[in-house]
Amino acid sequence: MNLPADDQLTIAGRTFRSRLMVGTGKYDTFEQMRAALDVSEAEIVTVAVRRVNLDQTEESLLNYIDRTRYFILPNTAGCQTAAEAVRTARLARAAGLSNWVKLEVIPSDGTLLPDPIETLEAAKTLVEEGFIVLPYTTDDHLVAKRLLDIGCATIMPYGSPIGTGRGLLSQDRLRRIIDLVAGRVPVVVDAGIGAPSDAALAMELGADAVLINTAIARAKQPIDMAHAMKLAVLAGRAGYLAGRIEKSDNAQPSSPTTGLIGQRI
Amino acid sequence: MNLPADDQLTIAGRTFRSRLMVGTGKYDTFEQMRAALDVSEAEIVTVAVRRVNLDQTEESLLNYIDRTRYFILPNTAGCQTAAEAVRTARLARAAGLSNWVKLEVIPSDGTLLPDPIETLEAAKTLVEEGFIVLPYTTDDHLVAKRLLDIGCATIMPYGSPIGTGRGLLSQDRLRRIIDLVAGRVPVVVDAGIGAPSDAALAMELGADAVLINTAIARAKQPIDMAHAMKLAVLAGRAGYLAGRIEKSDNAQPSSPTTGLIGQRI
Amino acid sequence: MNLPADDQLTIAGRTFRSRLMVGTGKYDTFEQMRAALDVSEAEIVTVAVRRVNLDQTEESLLNYIDRTRYFILPNTAGCQTAAEAVRTARLARAAGLSNWVKLEVIPSDGTLLPDPIETLEAAKTLVEEGFIVLPYTTDDHLVAKRLLDIGCATIMPYGSPIGTGRGLLSQDRLRRIIDLVAGRVPVVVDAGIGAPSDAALAMELGADAVLINTAIARAKQPIDMAHAMKLAVLAGRAGYLAGRIEKSDNAQPSSPTTGLIGQRI
Amino acid sequence: MNLPADDQLTIAGRTFRSRLMVGTGKYDTFEQMRAALDVSEAEIVTVAVRRVNLDQTEESLLNYIDRTRYFILPNTAGCQTAAEAVRTARLARAAGLSNWVKLEVIPSDGTLLPDPIETLEAAKTLVEEGFIVLPYTTDDHLVAKRLLDIGCATIMPYGSPIGTGRGLLSQDRLRRIIDLVAGRVPVVVDAGIGAPSDAALAMELGADAVLINTAIARAKQPIDMAHAMKLAVLAGRAGYLAGRIEKSDNAQPSSPTTGLIGQRI
Repeated sequence: MNLPADDQLTIAGRTFRSRLMVGTGKYDTFEQMRAALDVSEAEIVTVAVRRVNLDQTEESLLNYIDRTRYFILPNTAGCQTAAEAVRTARLARAAGLSNWVKLEVIPSDGTLLPDPIETLEAAKTLVEEGFIVLPYTTDDHLVAKRLLDIGCATIMPYGSPIGTGRGLLSQDRLRRIIDLVAGRVPVVVDAGIGAPSDAALAMELGADAVLINTAIARAKQPIDMAHAMKLAVLAGRAGYLAGRIEKSDNAQPSSPTTGLIGQRI
Repeated sequence: MNLPADDQLTIAGRTFRSRLMVGTGKYDTFEQMRAALDVSEAEIVTVAVRRVNLDQTEESLLNYIDRTRYFILPNTAGCQTAAEAVRTARLARAAGLSNWVKLEVIPSDGTLLPDPIETLEAAKTLVEEGFIVLPYTTDDHLVAKRLLDIGCATIMPYGSPIGTGRGLLSQDRLRRIIDLVAGRVPVVVDAGIGAPSDAALAMELGADAVLINTAIARAKQPIDMAHAMKLAVLAGRAGYLAGRIEKSDNAQPSSPTTGLIGQRI
Repeated sequence: MNLPADDQLTIAGRTFRSRLMVGTGKYDTFEQMRAALDVSEAEIVTVAVRRVNLDQTEESLLNYIDRTRYFILPNTAGCQTAAEAVRTARLARAAGLSNWVKLEVIPSDGTLLPDPIETLEAAKTLVEEGFIVLPYTTDDHLVAKRLLDIGCATIMPYGSPIGTGRGLLSQDRLRRIIDLVAGRVPVVVDAGIGAPSDAALAMELGADAVLINTAIARAKQPIDMAHAMKLAVLAGRAGYLAGRIEKSDNAQPSSPTTGLIGQRI
Repeated sequence: MNLPADDQLTIAGRTFRSRLMVGTGKYDTFEQMRAALDVSEAEIVTVAVRRVNLDQTEESLLNYIDRTRYFILPNTAGCQTAAEAVRTARLARAAGLSNWVKLEVIPSDGTLLPDPIETLEAAKTLVEEGFIVLPYTTDDHLVAKRLLDIGCATIMPYGSPIGTGRGLLSQDRLRRIIDLVAGRVPVVVDAGIGAPSDAALAMELGADAVLINTAIARAKQPIDMAHAMKLAVLAGRAGYLAGRIEKSDNAQPSSPTTGLIGQRI
């Protein structure tokens, strides 16, 4: 690809070439997951701590992920309170998984939307305990600002509710977060991406990365979709760097309307 | 790229590997245009007949386009009536340019939207005269149906008005055309694409190709944007073939919410 | 209501106080329809010629409509070609119903979208035969322009497909028609209105009237919805005349942010 | 109007007939404001405490509002922290204005969006101190839930940022709040309403009331717009009670397509 060689994603001092992070849930088989990860060229792979066999005594998801190639990002999926999320992060660290944590605190009301108050509380505790915290959050820039002030390593707002595949419901709000965070930490659009065009759009708005799970794992052909998403993230990033045209209310001819045959450009 | 080797675009019996068609207007220089065409990997390049030096006696746009590499598609940009468009197509053919024509009939009211009645009339005449006609048209599927019945070689509905970069204003209408045409001739989304995500979306809806001019030529870095658009078309096509997830009103966890630590997938 | 007394709708020389036209299909009973018409305060009531008992020998829809109070507008619902529509209009006139006709030419493809070519052809014939023609049309302003040039008495673009209740899918296109027609003949938004807010919005955009059928007849409480629609049309019209604020990308405080307690306005 | 006589809005035990609340900022003159209030038929009028001459020694906004007719709702506009908002509410109560308070806590970042954390903190304190608290809040249902649990008397989510007139940017989120609150306290859509159709739509979604300031005060004709907004709120409420048709993807004829002339309904 033609992206500049120094166009890297840096999170808490670590650099990555890929701007596509992927999840590991919902695949039909571990083998399918492994093949999709491979094709995606992702470097960061998020894993629900609840789903990992921490003692590794029997077959585990982790056996299918080459940890020399992928950076494992444990997440607190399934935690409904700050206390549960903190406990889960500690457990993962104690088991040697990582001191990075993708923080998710989601009440049980069926919307799968993150609870801003519990998320802030957990983030504060975890940062104080030395974790590198990557919080899944709403698209409210004032919540994002507080997460930033606490010392989180990324801001990860949703595009739309988890698993809906509805794309970016509020470009305004995402843009507000991107403008606010402005190069201090990466913004990663997490949740709701349903198609390659959604991933490209997130990047075009200036997001630093996207995280995708369901849209790949539940596509009709997950491995082919992993490939499509890889291309889409590259396309969106390239488009962002190339500087898109402004949207205009008024039509503009691409060929001069006053031109005559034989006239130059 | 990993698209199947037999995933080709066929128009009037000719096959193409690329699903990105590009225009030649609005570049700062011919050299910039040439470089953008190169990076885009487009095979079909559309040229306003009015802008071509048909007698080739002095420097012309065509000198900058390698005709062994690109297929030149003359267009009737600047024509406001069926009669003008027919005359322009004949002129291009007589000058040896091509018997293919991208038909554009656009009144002078500033909206740059195609006139369905004049377009139908011109299409009918041109098909009868043996032209391969690729008409720029509205997103009205009933107009598309008539163009199809006349024997046009593609249907080229707009996404939004020319040069506005507003993307696909009506996915419903485009889908209706795509469903209607259903593999009889290619559908090419023409006009209004502003960013890579728009190009990807058009392909995801099932369009067979897209045509882009302003969004590349007027980007801050046209050559880089040509690259982004190439990737976006590939991403969108791959996504279409991979089968995206359905959009859902209800959130769906990507990790099982009932799982316990240690549990398998 | 406080609308200016001279705020009247004029079509082909006839004036009306109400800007809400209503249809007569889909009610559970004729009695319910009669009550809804009454509450709506509509003056123009459209009736499918196919559904009218033209010889009046047995119970007919028309027996339930007080023709001294309502102006009956026959429509050509169910006609798929210009020829059928012309024949139906002639039949209605011959039976003494009216020389006004709401022209609908809709192919049988299930979309219920008007065919622009057949509509133009029928409109031309009917205007030449002395009919007052109110054509149901797409939201394509170039088709609207031709209908205007033919001599139609109104332009009646759709908001969204008939019966879908999806409101105004393209405010841009409606505005383009409204700007074009600009006081020459009334613009009536017909089809797709699902809720009072849709009716208000159509009026705010500058439409001269709206025509509603399904959204009233199939509401849970049709008579109450007729009342709601009446209010909504008044609200939208009043809002249009009062001149709404511009939409702004930037927030603007409604209370001065620099003010001190005790400071004046 | 024909709304049922018992269709009343009840907040903290007080009942109101009108579901339109209005603000008092941004009018050209106090006289214009008074006339607009009159025409709006609002009963609840919100006033920035900062703008009120609390000692009443000189001419004040309050001199123009008939307090036997209107219920004055002091607001904390201009407060950027919980502490400031609490202080302002106490000041208003001490001055005899009211123990009701419309709580607004808005940071100085120019977006005019409410800070969820400061708002929650201020709400908690004020409820504990015996205030009737009506908080302006985001459209995040999890924040709304906490405000409800604290004991707030209403939930007042925004439609779009204050003064933008962009209407209801997220119907999904508003609906989620309305479903959650479900008759426990009223939901009042506050901020962003730009036109009568926006007000009607808020009511159709099931909001119990709307609060409007800029869209009336800065309309070209504020008094006429107050009238339009009154009608729109009535229309939307009536439409909500009447039960709108479902939106459908598929077109549905309003006249039977199989009918023959003469056939009954």
